[in-house]
Amino acid sequence: MPAAARYGDPSLQLEGLNDVLRSQLGRRSVRAFTDRPVTDAELTALIAAAQSAPTSSNLQPWSVIAVRDPARKARLAVLAGDQDFVARAPLFLIWVADLGRARRLAARAGTRVDATDYLETTVIGFVDTALAAQNAVVAATSLGLGSVFVGAVRNHPEQIAAELGLPPHTVAAFGLAVGTPDPTEQADVKPRLPQAAVLHHEQYDAPAADAHIATYDERLTAYNTRFGLPGNWSDRVLARLHGPASMAGRHHLRAILERLGLPSR
Amino acid sequence: MPAAARYGDPSLQLEGLNDVLRSQLGRRSVRAFTDRPVTDAELTALIAAAQSAPTSSNLQPWSVIAVRDPARKARLAVLAGDQDFVARAPLFLIWVADLGRARRLAARAGTRVDATDYLETTVIGFVDTALAAQNAVVAATSLGLGSVFVGAVRNHPEQIAAELGLPPHTVAAFGLAVGTPDPTEQADVKPRLPQAAVLHHEQYDAPAADAHIATYDERLTAYNTRFGLPGNWSDRVLARLHGPASMAGRHHLRAILERLGLPSR
Repeated sequence: MPAAARYGDPSLQLEGLNDVLRSQLGRRSVRAFTDRPVTDAELTALIAAAQSAPTSSNLQPWSVIAVRDPARKARLAVLAGDQDFVARAPLFLIWVADLGRARRLAARAGTRVDATDYLETTVIGFVDTALAAQNAVVAATSLGLGSVFVGAVRNHPEQIAAELGLPPHTVAAFGLAVGTPDPTEQADVKPRLPQAAVLHHEQYDAPAADAHIATYDERLTAYNTRFGLPGNWSDRVLARLHGPASMAGRHHLRAILERLGLPSR
Repeated sequence: MPAAARYGDPSLQLEGLNDVLRSQLGRRSVRAFTDRPVTDAELTALIAAAQSAPTSSNLQPWSVIAVRDPARKARLAVLAGDQDFVARAPLFLIWVADLGRARRLAARAGTRVDATDYLETTVIGFVDTALAAQNAVVAATSLGLGSVFVGAVRNHPEQIAAELGLPPHTVAAFGLAVGTPDPTEQADVKPRLPQAAVLHHEQYDAPAADAHIATYDERLTAYNTRFGLPGNWSDRVLARLHGPASMAGRHHLRAILERLGLPSR
């Protein structure tokens, strides 16, 4: 009953699920991996899936760095919030929002791509990178691989860029640790907000949607308690978004993007 | 041979593909639909898949508006670049980067979520919305539905917000037209850059990657010629990113986000 776990609601059943949907609903974040390497054939499949995602005007404004070198993974783990599982994952993919390729095309053609100076184009870069990476997540799951995104590569984007030799007009958007799941890891499918809290019909109805948050707080508290974690959803959201002190340095992102050649005009 | 079509390279074969990967590699954008409605059960499945995507710190900073009303779809079609297929799709999903839910939580709790004022948090909003929406695309494909993203909802974000009754601190990130593919549509899998142009090992190597662009220009020219479209990839990228005049008004995005309550500090 993948829908029941996904929503933390034992009574919930969805009709018409197929194998793909069951796989998607059953996805969980994996942070513990066996020693088995990710093969070149698996990596090729993940990237082919990623490239098959939609992309605005076929711009394909992203690149990806496959890191397997243990020393580099260890350095990246420190930069990305000192998260050991990054070093222990057999493969760490860094997904790069890449306006540099277009800039280099323009330089070779002796023309300009001034649109790359605008926040809109940076947004396209991040969004298209995310669409691609999520396709890789789905592909990994289908191959029996586990994964987890690592947004903490944005804690120190300039050091990450130096480590990876990133050219101007590119930025590490997020990482993805990939490997064979360690079957002893204590983790499960995390319940999400009731569908009625996020899905609106014809127009946004905030009171109707927000009325479902109290139920969700109860369900997530029950889930967290199973893993010894404190707090309901609302409290954790409020703590995470409280202010600059809760952002691990990422409140400087706009200035850092400017220095990396991605100004937010 | 889904890999051959995806890369426009008749000789290419990938080993180890499964049904999920074959479905992903074979995805194409669908802009022509039959009259068959998207059922409520299908919509529920798409949103459950979307909610199963990863999300930073479980923030779930997105909402989605399902639009089926013909008059509203017609108005949205005009606002989104006057693209008729938006009105003809049986279902138009508007994916909303939503920091409003957290702001409302904070207001009810009498506290602050100052992190929502920063570009970093807006980026999280767009990225997590994209991860969710791509899962819906995969789910739709698995159900035999076709889809295409519509970035042009960012041409006039304030008018879109008014049409959909969006609350403060939210913005329509992109649309997704969904329906049963019209079998007579002239369209195919669009070839992407060779994998060696986007995948790097350990460090970014721009000269090695960019060396594959000339081959891709030839392949995309061959593909475009089949559909009566002019130009190779490089020329189309340079035209699309030339400057504000090529951005359909979206060079104002930063100022518009500020007015919608998503400042880019």
